[in-house]
Amino acid sequence: MYKLLALYAPPDDPAAFESHYRNVHAPLARAIPGLVRLVVNRVRGTPMGGEAPFHLVAELHFPDRETFKAAAQSPEFQATGADLANFAKGKVTLLVVEEEDD
Amino acid sequence: MYKLLALYAPPDDPAAFESHYRNVHAPLARAIPGLVRLVVNRVRGTPMGGEAPFHLVAELHFPDRETFKAAAQSPEFQATGADLANFAKGKVTLLVVEEEDD
Repeated sequence: MYKLLALYAPPDDPAAFESHYRNVHAPLARAIPGLVRLVVNRVRGTPMGGEAPFHLVAELHFPDRETFKAAAQSPEFQATGADLANFAKGKVTLLVVEEEDD
Repeated sequence: MYKLLALYAPPDDPAAFESHYRNVHAPLARAIPGLVRLVVNRVRGTPMGGEAPFHLVAELHFPDRETFKAAAQSPEFQATGADLANFAKGKVTLLVVEEEDD
């Protein structure tokens, strides 16, 4: 499995972030060709109880590298990336990762 | 699903990191009671091609909050956490997250 992870830092305006993420950004992400699953993880804290550096972690799942590479060239992927500037400018860390087999 | 995410920054000594992670740390993590899956994600890069701030992202999956809370009290969990100092001291970010329903 190839995955794009989006790690969002705590937003300045949580209500505006939620609204934009749910109503605009997630639907854009779900339209990316080849995407097999979008997992939205809410950060509940840290094991030691300190302040968590992230608020939300999204996982975009693609079955393999080739599908991800094709997806990354799509207009839907570009639109999803461009939308980050509308609600998470400078406050999101993006990683491309590959799952090891169990 | 409740998950503990461990985000490892690029190690100073990648070979030593790999060896310790695979031979010592992952087996400790797999022994945590209630764990249903350990997913090891290799960071392949960033969508824009910049330097990735993380090297490896591990996911420890637990079926629900109660199971995670019990796991976090176990000697196996404490041993896994203590082992971080042996290979990733100050270079790991830990997050407790909850998956939203699809």
